[in-house]
Amino acid sequence: MKIAIIGSGNVSYHLNRALKSKAAVSLINPHSLQGLPIDADIIMIAVADRAIESVFNNIPKTSACIVHTSGSTPMNVLKGNSPDYGVFYPLQTFSKGIDLIYSEIPLFLEASNKRSLKTIQELAALFSYKIRFADSSMRERLHLASVFVCNFTNAMAGIAYKIVENSGLNFKDLIPLLHQTVDKLDILTPSDAQTGPAVRNDELIINRHLDILENDYPEFRDIYKHISVQIQQNLCKK
Amino acid sequence: MKIAIIGSGNVSYHLNRALKSKAAVSLINPHSLQGLPIDADIIMIAVADRAIESVFNNIPKTSACIVHTSGSTPMNVLKGNSPDYGVFYPLQTFSKGIDLIYSEIPLFLEASNKRSLKTIQELAALFSYKIRFADSSMRERLHLASVFVCNFTNAMAGIAYKIVENSGLNFKDLIPLLHQTVDKLDILTPSDAQTGPAVRNDELIINRHLDILENDYPEFRDIYKHISVQIQQNLCKK
Repeated sequence: MKIAIIGSGNVSYHLNRALKSKAAVSLINPHSLQGLPIDADIIMIAVADRAIESVFNNIPKTSACIVHTSGSTPMNVLKGNSPDYGVFYPLQTFSKGIDLIYSEIPLFLEASNKRSLKTIQELAALFSYKIRFADSSMRERLHLASVFVCNFTNAMAGIAYKIVENSGLNFKDLIPLLHQTVDKLDILTPSDAQTGPAVRNDELIINRHLDILENDYPEFRDIYKHISVQIQQNLCKK
Repeated sequence: MKIAIIGSGNVSYHLNRALKSKAAVSLINPHSLQGLPIDADIIMIAVADRAIESVFNNIPKTSACIVHTSGSTPMNVLKGNSPDYGVFYPLQTFSKGIDLIYSEIPLFLEASNKRSLKTIQELAALFSYKIRFADSSMRERLHLASVFVCNFTNAMAGIAYKIVENSGLNFKDLIPLLHQTVDKLDILTPSDAQTGPAVRNDELIINRHLDILENDYPEFRDIYKHISVQIQQNLCKK
């Protein structure tokens, strides 16, 4: 299987790492779109969402299966070159230099026809045993959910980091709490796992926290308030 | 060391579990405050924040060291009975039925005098090797930070749960992403670990996500918007 990977970001880095050791794979990282091999089986576009269309429009006419790796870009932006196209969306956060167990990353596939589906499934099986299917609408919602789970969880840690480091405390002391918070979700639903002043309706503590934020971190006050209200009104409604 | 634990919630449950196997400890769970043993070395008040003062006011005159386990309640609410009092605050989320490695929980201590400090340190050493000291103001900020790290991280998972389960997808597929998000923070600061549309200034995706939320989950739109703005303006400012 001859695979060309376009892109130089985090996703491309990890696609290359995951595939380079596979005997069945011949891997190509073209320096320009004109350098794409005419006999490639798959062309993977692993670039920022906003660049996908312009990259696609500059791929020479091909019979390869063309895929992108984006959660929020519809499959049909790849229509018009090869009849075989689709999406290969790994649901994971990628950073260079951080190792991953690729076989456990859920992959969400979509394909333009049966032949491209077969090709994309073969590619997926080289990576992971967690193969799923999602159309563009489902994938977009999955990506939205992953922004909350990943990007916004990291932002919550970022706010906590500012608060403790400005108070002469050490963010490292919050790490066991963070791991335990996440480990609980292996077993409990988020609704059942919820703890803290909001779900206890502890207005005394909530108001005290809002006062501290108003004085020291006014930029985070609205976030505290909105999330607390949602825990009380929507997320943990009995 | 004779320890009386007051309370029947999650913290009390885990304090009992952690201490019951210790040879040096004699553990008492009084059915009423009048049943507190007069020769206790430590009385631990492990009840909801708003109940601490009324429990304290009903403790018979004692020479025991009286401690509470709350992040956000000042030590000085325990003034007026024994001269020996203080705080024993375990920085962890407690749920009944979820196991914990107690020895790795950071404990934040505060004491009214040298003698009570010695007593509380002896108690702490039975639990954990991570013993810290924080006055009431630092401890309150630590608690505020832990609301973001723990309670609000869980709320982010709760929002994601609603989005995926309503879309015919499975929340379990987000679990590897969640673990990876947290594992990265063992190595990187939250600012360095931040990924996603906000830190990339990907307004195309952000606006698409806000549109989906406005249509399907209007209650979560403001949270998405506020956190994205904070990622861009405060959390990842270069």
